[in-house]
Parts: sequence; C-alpha cells; structure tokens
Amino acid sequence: MSNNRYEQGWAKLMEVDGEGGRRVIESLQDIAPDLGRYVIEFAFGDIYSRPGLDLKQRQLITIASLTTQGGCEPQLIVHLNAALNVGLTPAEIVEAIVHCAPYTGFPRALNAIFAAKRVFEERGVSV
Amino acid sequence: MSNNRYEQGWAKLMEVDGEGGRRVIESLQDIAPDLGRYVIEFAFGDIYSRPGLDLKQRQLITIASLTTQGGCEPQLIVHLNAALNVGLTPAEIVEAIVHCAPYTGFPRALNAIFAAKRVFEERGVSV
Amino acid sequence: MSNNRYEQGWAKLMEVDGEGGRRVIESLQDIAPDLGRYVIEFAFGDIYSRPGLDLKQRQLITIASLTTQGGCEPQLIVHLNAALNVGLTPAEIVEAIVHCAPYTGFPRALNAIFAAKRVFEERGVSV
Amino acid sequence: MSNNRYEQGWAKLMEVDGEGGRRVIESLQDIAPDLGRYVIEFAFGDIYSRPGLDLKQRQLITIASLTTQGGCEPQLIVHLNAALNVGLTPAEIVEAIVHCAPYTGFPRALNAIFAAKRVFEERGVSV
Amino acid sequence: MSNNRYEQGWAKLMEVDGEGGRRVIESLQDIAPDLGRYVIEFAFGDIYSRPGLDLKQRQLITIASLTTQGGCEPQLIVHLNAALNVGLTPAEIVEAIVHCAPYTGFPRALNAIFAAKRVFEERGVSV
Amino acid sequence: MSNNRYEQGWAKLMEVDGEGGRRVIESLQDIAPDLGRYVIEFAFGDIYSRPGLDLKQRQLITIASLTTQGGCEPQLIVHLNAALNVGLTPAEIVEAIVHCAPYTGFPRALNAIFAAKRVFEERGVSV
Repeated sequence: MSNNRYEQGWAKLMEVDGEGGRRVIESLQDIAPDLGRYVIEFAFGDIYSRPGLDLKQRQLITIASLTTQGGCEPQLIVHLNAALNVGLTPAEIVEAIVHCAPYTGFPRALNAIFAAKRVFEERGVSV
Repeated sequence: MSNNRYEQGWAKLMEVDGEGGRRVIESLQDIAPDLGRYVIEFAFGDIYSRPGLDLKQRQLITIASLTTQGGCEPQLIVHLNAALNVGLTPAEIVEAIVHCAPYTGFPRALNAIFAAKRVFEERGVSV
Repeated sequence: MSNNRYEQGWAKLMEVDGEGGRRVIESLQDIAPDLGRYVIEFAFGDIYSRPGLDLKQRQLITIASLTTQGGCEPQLIVHLNAALNVGLTPAEIVEAIVHCAPYTGFPRALNAIFAAKRVFEERGVSV
Repeated sequence: MSNNRYEQGWAKLMEVDGEGGRRVIESLQDIAPDLGRYVIEFAFGDIYSRPGLDLKQRQLITIASLTTQGGCEPQLIVHLNAALNVGLTPAEIVEAIVHCAPYTGFPRALNAIFAAKRVFEERGVSV
Repeated sequence: MSNNRYEQGWAKLMEVDGEGGRRVIESLQDIAPDLGRYVIEFAFGDIYSRPGLDLKQRQLITIASLTTQGGCEPQLIVHLNAALNVGLTPAEIVEAIVHCAPYTGFPRALNAIFAAKRVFEERGVSV
Repeated sequence: MSNNRYEQGWAKLMEVDGEGGRRVIESLQDIAPDLGRYVIEFAFGDIYSRPGLDLKQRQLITIASLTTQGGCEPQLIVHLNAALNVGLTPAEIVEAIVHCAPYTGFPRALNAIFAAKRVFEERGVSV
C-alpha cells in the first residue's frame, strides 16, 4: 500500500506541479531524499489525492496559505505554476492573492503578486 | 461614492458573516469605530464585492489564510460560520483545513479543526 | 556592572510596566527565574534604558511588534498598560493599532484592539 | 505497508505523547478522523520512528518549533508532557525554552514557559 | 468621495514613500492595478491621512511591524526610505529596530538592520 | 562583570559560530555596533554559556527555531555552520530539519534543507 501512495503521489505531483515539482524532488536526492518522498507520499499521495475539493479549489487554498505564511517564495512559484496547470486563470490567481490582503496585510500580498508576475511572464500569460 | 462602499460593504458583511460580523463591528463602536468602518468599506465593500471569484471560493481562501497565520481563532470562528452561510458544506470546510496541513503543519491545522468543531456544534451541523 | 544592569532594569521595568511587569517576573521565580532576570537586565536594563527614543516612542514600537507577531495577548496587555503608564493617550494607542492594519491585516489588528478594550476598561479610561 | 505505518505510528504516539496524544486523536473522530490518521501515520509512523536522533533530541526540536511558531499552546502542552515522558528533565525543558529567547523573542519564550509551568504543576514535578 | 481618497492617498504616498512608492504602484499596473489602488486609497488615503499620530510616529510603527513579520525586506526598504523622508534620523531608525530585538528576536532585528544599512548607503547617510 | 559577559560571549561566539559569527558582528560596526554587542553579551555570554544543555543540543534547538520562523536564511546559514562546528553530523542536521516538517510544514522545512545543502557544499561535507 505504501508503494501505492508513492505512485499515486508522483502521478499527482506531475499533474499538479509538473516540472517545478520534479526539480524540487530531484534537488533533494543528495541531501534529504526522504523529505522528497514525504512530499510525494503525504502531500500528494495522501492529501492532494483526496476527494472533496477539486484541484482548482486546492490550488486556491495552497496559494492563500503560502501567501500568508510569507518567506516561501520558492514554493509559491511552484504552486503559481501549478495553479495555471490545473486550469485556474491568471485573473483568478491574482484575485486569490488580492483577497488575502485584508487578512494578511499588503506586504505579503505584494510579495505574492510579484511572484505571480514573474511566473506569468515566464509562462507568457497575462491577466 | 464612499457612502456607496459602506452600504455595499455592510450588505456583503451581512450576507457573508451575518450576526458574527455584526457583533465584531458593534464591539468596536466604543473604542475604534473607524477600524470597524474599514472592515466594512475595504474588506467587504472593496474586496468581497469584487467579481472574479465567488463567495465559496473566497471563504476557502479566507479559511486557509486564517488557519495559516495562527492565533486568529476569533476571526476563524466568524469565517467558519461565514463559510457555512455562503454554502460550503462542513465536509468541504474540513477538507480545506486538512489541505493546509502539509503547508502550515499539524498544529495550526489542528487549531483550525477544533475551531470548526465548535462552530459545527453551535450550528448543529456535522460532517 | 552586571548588578547595575539589574538595578537599572528593575527601575525601568517598574517605571514602564509597573505591577504587570512585577507579576510576570514573580510568576517566573519557581520555574525560570533567569528568564525573568534577562527580561530585567537585557530588555529593560540594556534596551529600554537606551537614549535615542523616548518611552512613548518605545511603547508605540512595542505595541506594533506585539500586534504584528500575534498570539502574544498576555504581553500585549502588559504593554498596553505600559503605554498608558508612560503617557500615551488611549486615542494614540488605538491609532497605533489601527495603523498596523494595512501591514499585518485586520485579524491581528482586531485582536490587539480587543486587548486594548479590556485594558482601558480595567483602567477606567476611554478613547 | 500502510497498515504498518499506522500501527508503528500509534505505538510511537503512545510512547511519546501518551494520554495527551490519545485525546487529540479521539477528539478528531467525529470531525476529521483522517487528520488524526495522518498525525499517527506521518508525524509518528514516518517521522518520529526514524533513526538518526533519539526521542529526547526530537522533543527538544519539537518544543523549539512550537515555542517559535506561537499560538500553539495546546500542542505545546501535549509535547511538554511528551518531553517528560521520554526522559527530559524539567530543567532541560526550561533550558530549551530559555535558549529560544534570543531567536524568537521574550514574548513567545514566556508563553512557552507558562505552558511548562502548568504542565509541571499537573505532573507534580519541579525544576 | 472615493476619488478624493485616491487623490489624498496618492499625495500622501508621494510625501511618505516618494519614488519607492511610485515604483511599487507602477509595477502593479500590468498584473494587479487594483491592489495598487487599494494601497493608495486604504493604506495612504484612509490610514496615513488620519490625525492622531504624526508621520514620524507612523513610520516607527511601520518599521516595527515590518521588522517583526519578517520576509518583507522589499517593503522594509521602501519604508526605511520613507522614515528618512518624513524626518526620522538614521540613529532613530536604528534605535527602533534595536528596540524590537527583545520582542521579535535577533534574527529579524538583524535582517532589518542590514536592510537599513543598504538604504543608508544608497542615500549617502550614516548613523 | 559586564566586561566578563562580553569576553565570555565572544569566546563562545567564536567556538560556536566561528567566522560566520565574526562577519555578522563586523558588518554591524558602522550601523548598529550595540546590536552586535548584545548578540555577544546576551545570546552568547548569557544564554549559550549556560549549563544544562550541551552545544549540540543547543544547535538542534537553534536550527529548529530558525527553520520554523522562516525568512531567516542568513542566520540559518550561520547556525548550520555552527552545528557542524560543535560536532553535529550532516545527517543529524538534516534529521533535525526533517523532524520539523510535521510541525511547521514542508515549505519552511524545504527552505532550511536547501540552506543546509548550500552550507554542506561550501564545507565539502555530505550526508
């Protein structure tokens, strides 16, 4: 069964994060491969694979959480790409970050918007 | 126009937060009424009134942000009620909090779940 | 000289925090008296005793820091009392908290305002 | 294998957190039983069961993490008990919290010390 | 009236943040212009335009809030410039950051000091 | 006695942080030398010089605290070097960061691991 969690998690990681997710896992291989395995098995095999919310809803939640905790720009960039991958529009992504401003303040919202600006430019999409 | 923001914000606050929102605003009247006015005008008149995301999506984002920043149980309780008010099911609310666990850790996720447990009991709903 | 830091720190703690500060130090005596000593020697003997900013300015900074980090309501209550002790008016204290709202978001600002409401009521002062 | 993670995790949870851990898991049964299962399988079955650090070292790390993030007093109380369960002395626990003061500031260190004071009193131990 | 908030906010933004503020607003134009408008209307038109505290006091509070939340170095750099713009001396700015050390810990205080060092060098001022 | 705290603190800073610590103190000389002095006197002269926990235990705690608060990568790099200096193995350091994942979430754990990867490469050590 654990093997199943890994395989399901890897498939989900590829579906959601794609190449950005693969790079994170690979960069862990020579220092903390088990941490990468837990990301695959727990975050993607257990959590992202759950029913109850679709992937668009999950990415809205992930973006809100990463925007709010601050200092997680690398992960935010992976998950802003993921948000596009699962079909959220640039406008919906921006709207999610703007919605966080009254809760977490302008500085963290601005940091997230500038991360989105960088991702949108790299992907050649615009609001 | 500013008057319009207040009226629109109040209507939106009542639609989303209902009595919990009213109590927060009223409790500010003798100490910082302008802070209550900004909640109405900015958070609800400006932000919650925007198109682009519906109220269910906005409540998923709000819950993720409040779960993640921690120490905001009073606001979480208001917005867990709001999540029910706008039509999210208890199961969807729980799912949103569970989804935050890999990002913000178990302690903040547990604090949010126990806030949800209290709200669901008060509302007589269950997952 | 270290003795001097303790004596100067204690005098400053009494001047700024008063009884609220004394209670914190006393409550540490049977578990971590050295932590209380560091509060006296470092926070008050070293930092609060520095020239360059007066005590009103220092309390505005302390309140902003405690409002922003969240989850520090006990310390906020001590320092809201301290703010009154050093001559800030209730209106100035409220204004300092309201000023934090765009930076740290409404939830933390609201938590700080409700702490101030409690302190003002206990002190019999009003905005 | 997944079953194995659950069983190993439950045994480790009982060894480390004991009754406090059992109560957390039980209180999740009617709202988010899967969140409890992830605590057992991931936090205790995967992480706490790893070699490389012993349980005393792991509890020092857990206490430092919970002290630093703030607003996690319920979890801190469970893990202060756990620290005693795995053989850390009250003096070592206090020392770990005091060590955090220069990194996370006095307010969070004080909140953790007062949580420890409550736990030590309930357990009838002293520094 | 809303128009008035924008005009008043823009004038205040220019007075306080100057070119650093203008650059933030401009960089938002192609991705989230409304977020820039809210910074102008709410943070500067509503909050910074309030009586009750002068601009020097407001910048002490802003610096304390940004120092404490961490991960907001871009905003800190804008507001360290703003602190100089409204007449705080480099020594007062450093003092405000040093005052935060016992509350938020050395790491965040050091990050803020090194941001100030960079701003002071760019401005050709010294403590 | 205060002089003694400085001398003892400096010796401890050199023992623990070594050159990385010296660079931090030196970089403060032209902007906030007293902040450097407090790091030496309080963090190292008072806290690190205490009995009750050895330096390996203290570095596990420091790494957990810095990993958890986030946005403190410069300080984390100094203290990951310090962890090696006092005799923790690369595997123990990685294990300490992995242990934080269930408490503070994957993003902060990943940020800390990538800081460790950079430090280990600079030191020519591997897990």
